[in-house]
Amino acid sequence: MTDRVPPEALAQLGYARSLLKRHSAERSEPAHVAAEMAREDARFVLLAGDVPVLARRGEGATALLDREAGARSVAGTALYLGRADDRPVIARAAPAEAADFFRDDPDFEVLDLRSIAVQGRVPAEELGLLATAKSLLAWHARHGFCANCGKPTAMSCGGYRRDCAACGTEHFPRTDPVVIMLVTRGDRCLLGRQARFVANSYSCLAGFLEPGETIEDAVRREVFEEAGITVGKVDYLASQPWPFVSSLMIGCRGEAETETITLDRAELEDGRWFTRDEVRRMLAREHPDGLITPPPMAIAHTLMRAFVAE
Amino acid sequence: MTDRVPPEALAQLGYARSLLKRHSAERSEPAHVAAEMAREDARFVLLAGDVPVLARRGEGATALLDREAGARSVAGTALYLGRADDRPVIARAAPAEAADFFRDDPDFEVLDLRSIAVQGRVPAEELGLLATAKSLLAWHARHGFCANCGKPTAMSCGGYRRDCAACGTEHFPRTDPVVIMLVTRGDRCLLGRQARFVANSYSCLAGFLEPGETIEDAVRREVFEEAGITVGKVDYLASQPWPFVSSLMIGCRGEAETETITLDRAELEDGRWFTRDEVRRMLAREHPDGLITPPPMAIAHTLMRAFVAE
Repeated sequence: MTDRVPPEALAQLGYARSLLKRHSAERSEPAHVAAEMAREDARFVLLAGDVPVLARRGEGATALLDREAGARSVAGTALYLGRADDRPVIARAAPAEAADFFRDDPDFEVLDLRSIAVQGRVPAEELGLLATAKSLLAWHARHGFCANCGKPTAMSCGGYRRDCAACGTEHFPRTDPVVIMLVTRGDRCLLGRQARFVANSYSCLAGFLEPGETIEDAVRREVFEEAGITVGKVDYLASQPWPFVSSLMIGCRGEAETETITLDRAELEDGRWFTRDEVRRMLAREHPDGLITPPPMAIAHTLMRAFVAE
Repeated sequence: MTDRVPPEALAQLGYARSLLKRHSAERSEPAHVAAEMAREDARFVLLAGDVPVLARRGEGATALLDREAGARSVAGTALYLGRADDRPVIARAAPAEAADFFRDDPDFEVLDLRSIAVQGRVPAEELGLLATAKSLLAWHARHGFCANCGKPTAMSCGGYRRDCAACGTEHFPRTDPVVIMLVTRGDRCLLGRQARFVANSYSCLAGFLEPGETIEDAVRREVFEEAGITVGKVDYLASQPWPFVSSLMIGCRGEAETETITLDRAELEDGRWFTRDEVRRMLAREHPDGLITPPPMAIAHTLMRAFVAE
């Protein structure tokens, strides 16, 4: 159903394009990983705490630092992500304070990953690679112990696995599927806002898929739970890695079979039907009441653009 | 793109329909969960080891046992899944040996979850519920400790969460997205076989999605890694919960841009292009060389049926 999404909207979707070639077979060989990480032409994605350090390049910036800059701070966890432009890419975690090494240097900037995507501070195809780095480093930071036996685990496969020597369990990074859906009824669509959203912003409903659910049933359950609306037909439109912390956003369109909204106030502060024309004005930031949508890098924006374009 | 899948093929897809209503808001209230689990009309999904116990019902069977049967074996982990037909559903783990209590009783049968789906031993809408039970119980069995600090965790939310009292981390069940794809080139499609497959069986390529990847890029990466084929356009067709152990199968169609296959022998024992007519014969079990496909309950079968129906 990607055909239904305007290509220019898809092109603005954040974290959806990646320079990374993963070389997943080779990364299980420690000697290969060590050789890759030792290469002089390796480049570094450096996160200080959870904030990337960028190197300025003309008017823009890049997240791919050369070895000298990447090695400048105290060494933390280092992962072998794969290659980009045929050069090894290493993700490295540094303490949050390491940002200070770079903040006052005019050759660098320190910017959170959401702002990097919203502002388009790095080439679009670096965003997917940054998402991989951030999700994997966050996983290592919170998974130092074996969930099966409680003993410490050790990194393997360049960082794409952790192994427990005590009980033999292999642990793989998790990616949590999330359904996000634009629910329509004729010429209108259902949007809601959570209390934590910026003022006047409305978005698509969304929620984590649960064990034993199809994508389609997860869409139906979430919409019914949050808004009391029954959804029939569900179509897939697009997907997006979402590195806060490590989700896969599965963007869908759902057809409502009922109209009366009953909000779950624990989830949504408001929710209502919006006409196509109203959504068009919100996307263009020309709504008479000042209502807005998430930015173009968010898949909710992509889904709304697809609806408006019909 | 679900429109592209013949409805009769979709209807045979295993674990894709579920009687379960999850009541995810209420399950965070311990008093509600306790009251539900104490109800006389509650029904039990019982797994002895990882094998379900079924109650015979006429020619068929049901996985929903009444309280008397569900309580018959030694009590293990018990989860509140939600409701089915407005009656509480409890999933309970019993030791593998508990199967002996039931195996010789003509009112019951003990059958692994894959065979239940292949044989259609229970109503189709019980398969999704069984998938939820099996995935969640397997998660609890392997996640008794906090990955963040190594201390023991305790079940909460009826079993949809585990909490660490030592460091405060909340752990949610994981669902691992897997892409599975039928790659086509004109009138032919790419199928492969792993060494562990039953003899003469060919299936779609598949693999786990990794952090920082879209569904579409995961399809392209896996096909290139396993068969050396470059894939362009990718369309989503259907999804399926796969409870071995806890995956979400994301079924896609991919268009090959190259033709020469280079197999990764660590993954695939064989792989080649099959004509549409050949796939039709394999599905019908009429292939002259005795080649076959996975059964109708598997999403690979669904994807092949969609290709043949075009």
